[in-house]
Amino acid sequence: MLTYSFTNIGSDPLYIHLYKCIKNDIISGVLTTDMKLPSKRSFAKNLGISTITVENAYAQLQSEGYIYSLPKKGFYVSAIEPVSAQALPVSAPEQETPLSQDRKTGAAVDLVSNRTSIDSFPFSVWAKIIRETISEKRQELMTAPPSGGIMALRRAICEHLKAYRNMDIAPEQIIIGAGTEYLYGLLIQLLGFDKSYAIENPGYRKLLQVYQSHHVTCCPIPVDHEGIDVLSLNQSGADVAHITPSHHFPTGIITSISRRYELLGWAARENGRYIIEDDYDSEFRLTGKPIPPLQSIDHSEKVIYINTFSKSLSSTVRLGYMVLPPQLLERYRQKLHFCSCTVSNFEQYTLAHFLSEGHFEKHINRMRTHYKTVRDELLLAIKKSPFASRIHILEEDAGLHFLMEIDTSLSDHELIERAQKNSIHLACLSEYYFGEEQSRPDHTIVVNYSGLTREQIPEVAKRLQCFFADSI
Amino acid sequence: MLTYSFTNIGSDPLYIHLYKCIKNDIISGVLTTDMKLPSKRSFAKNLGISTITVENAYAQLQSEGYIYSLPKKGFYVSAIEPVSAQALPVSAPEQETPLSQDRKTGAAVDLVSNRTSIDSFPFSVWAKIIRETISEKRQELMTAPPSGGIMALRRAICEHLKAYRNMDIAPEQIIIGAGTEYLYGLLIQLLGFDKSYAIENPGYRKLLQVYQSHHVTCCPIPVDHEGIDVLSLNQSGADVAHITPSHHFPTGIITSISRRYELLGWAARENGRYIIEDDYDSEFRLTGKPIPPLQSIDHSEKVIYINTFSKSLSSTVRLGYMVLPPQLLERYRQKLHFCSCTVSNFEQYTLAHFLSEGHFEKHINRMRTHYKTVRDELLLAIKKSPFASRIHILEEDAGLHFLMEIDTSLSDHELIERAQKNSIHLACLSEYYFGEEQSRPDHTIVVNYSGLTREQIPEVAKRLQCFFADSI
Repeated sequence: MLTYSFTNIGSDPLYIHLYKCIKNDIISGVLTTDMKLPSKRSFAKNLGISTITVENAYAQLQSEGYIYSLPKKGFYVSAIEPVSAQALPVSAPEQETPLSQDRKTGAAVDLVSNRTSIDSFPFSVWAKIIRETISEKRQELMTAPPSGGIMALRRAICEHLKAYRNMDIAPEQIIIGAGTEYLYGLLIQLLGFDKSYAIENPGYRKLLQVYQSHHVTCCPIPVDHEGIDVLSLNQSGADVAHITPSHHFPTGIITSISRRYELLGWAARENGRYIIEDDYDSEFRLTGKPIPPLQSIDHSEKVIYINTFSKSLSSTVRLGYMVLPPQLLERYRQKLHFCSCTVSNFEQYTLAHFLSEGHFEKHINRMRTHYKTVRDELLLAIKKSPFASRIHILEEDAGLHFLMEIDTSLSDHELIERAQKNSIHLACLSEYYFGEEQSRPDHTIVVNYSGLTREQIPEVAKRLQCFFADSI
Repeated sequence: MLTYSFTNIGSDPLYIHLYKCIKNDIISGVLTTDMKLPSKRSFAKNLGISTITVENAYAQLQSEGYIYSLPKKGFYVSAIEPVSAQALPVSAPEQETPLSQDRKTGAAVDLVSNRTSIDSFPFSVWAKIIRETISEKRQELMTAPPSGGIMALRRAICEHLKAYRNMDIAPEQIIIGAGTEYLYGLLIQLLGFDKSYAIENPGYRKLLQVYQSHHVTCCPIPVDHEGIDVLSLNQSGADVAHITPSHHFPTGIITSISRRYELLGWAARENGRYIIEDDYDSEFRLTGKPIPPLQSIDHSEKVIYINTFSKSLSSTVRLGYMVLPPQLLERYRQKLHFCSCTVSNFEQYTLAHFLSEGHFEKHINRMRTHYKTVRDELLLAIKKSPFASRIHILEEDAGLHFLMEIDTSLSDHELIERAQKNSIHLACLSEYYFGEEQSRPDHTIVVNYSGLTREQIPEVAKRLQCFFADSI
């Protein structure tokens, strides 16, 4: 049986240490594809640790796709495809991409909008930093920033990405912009209007809208339980894959590690192929260790990492950023260096201080606790409802939404209509599908709980009963 | 001789009243093309007003192109072309456009950059408003704005445009964006990637860069002393003319009123033709009444007005706006309404208060006085310099730059080289020309004085003598 040492594990929790040991053995080939792992109980006994520690380590490995489970059999090592070709230097045109979707709502309960709540924004700290910035940074505030944004902010983001996402990058690789939608447009200019862009199906409608609005080819590619389908991606002829591997929108699926390597392989096989890794709500993974970004395992300079503070801080703070691999950074310098940075210095300096003084970390931790509480209480309320047996919850571990499958004979259209009558703003998973080809799952609601307060939860649970009114 | 009544003139200064009377008679056809106007002295005597009043009225009419002067002969009525066709409703694709140019500089004297000085930004007022906004507008700050921006800001801009530019528009027509470059991109999406965009030659290099970066056809069109050449524009096959009629960059030429009507006529003749009126520094016209924008005389919904606060407030505040005519607004709503507003609520609410509480007006007045002082002192210093006879100043009335023609045998390349050696950052007019066809004026320097302080002026005058060093 496998044996690992538990001495000198540093500050890592036990389960993380175990997770790392197993992961290293999988990557290095000590543990080979389809090899069976020890059962949790016997492994725990053998290592002298608790079963729950092994369980957490296995859960983390599974959520990242390093291992898979077979019901009633146990855990097995997944097949990890190595990156095949090395990317060659290229010189090409320009391109861009988006990610957000919501509807106007006056509903009592809003399960769609990605809005952050008023109470969650750290007003007093933000106001204090603005005041300090204005009094201390006059000179800097009036100095035009580089095209990619002020260096203080780029350095602060760089440190944040190192600490939270284990990404080793230089501040110069970061390009600040007024929201991710703007950056998607900049990416189209950078990668090329002649390129074809693949998006996930189901996925974020706004992405399709941005690509269409820029008159570039955009192909929706099916997503299976491991992430975007690489065979379909390959057949589509797409040059750029715009994906959400940490937490697929809207299903919540985490792209498995083997799929990640497959995607990197796909990108490396041709010049001009790129992956846009949209890491839009990775800060809010509520269970286990964050999934390492594709960017951190990419050695071919094929991954453009993109993220935003509009989601983690406030949707009304328009500030996103992207991390360009070195070759693309060089191309950016040649082609797009004339672009002025689209975010005001006031906001950039304020956010830089907010990050470097640790306020963002505190804010994220507070919000994570808040979201976890809201989620747990909402799930509990659903579980306790008279119709719990007719509700099945999926993908509840990551991000700020989960799926709720309902056992009903109502069509999705009828579900939404009934919700509207009961002042619930909701969206069904089927609505996030593009085109007619793919079969759409029925009766599955995408529950976005980021805008809910704890006080609203009993009301939400009560109103959700409207779907089962016919059975009374 | 012409006679006008000077009773009931309201709050207008005498010269403005006279200007309006003559302008109305020209537009209504009472005064016909090439009709000679009375001499200033006899006209003043006849009306019982001072000669200087007539002189000011004539100067205003001339700068707007309603009249022209012949040396030693007098003033004559210009030919005003009426708008011929009426625009038809159209339904078409999307489009965008830019405007700014500068170089990195470590020079002691910078005559190129469009930077605003630190001292000019109203820090204390701005800081006070931010504090008030944060404490009073929590709810609003956390509410996602409409795609076009928060209504309070759009209303405030609307009132500003009414007061300063005599524009009658609805707040809904205003679209706020993170700087004009971003809005140019949005306009390309709105007007169409298949359209051809004309820019002025000479002109702003960044405009060409933005259009090229979006892979749309961009044709530079020659500018004569009245504005962009409409015959060339027509021959170019361009669909959209992106122009700076209030103050052409970089020559400073004001598009004459007859040319304005010609341009409106050009736009009205075909569906899909539009004019982007870039009013980038109209706030800083230093002499006479501001020139009415093309937008205010457009009855065919063909003019998109665009302006920015980055120039009037601080280059590090990234906030611009455009005014869409009703038909294009409708198209925007259909095609681009998914776009999130790119400016943070914090900045939008702060600017809204800054405008509606009259601070912007005060700021503009203060800056105009400041720029006028700097300009006057700079011109005086040049006039007093030992080489005054070899310097000829052009177009010094509008905006924040003028042209300085130098009598020299040095090439422009040599001028710039010599400037660099003497730590002056400058640009020659010839550098702003696109393509090889057009003949370029030599020895003409574009002097941008927006970044100069009064204290620097003796130094500037002294350093400028380097161009004449060979004659010593």
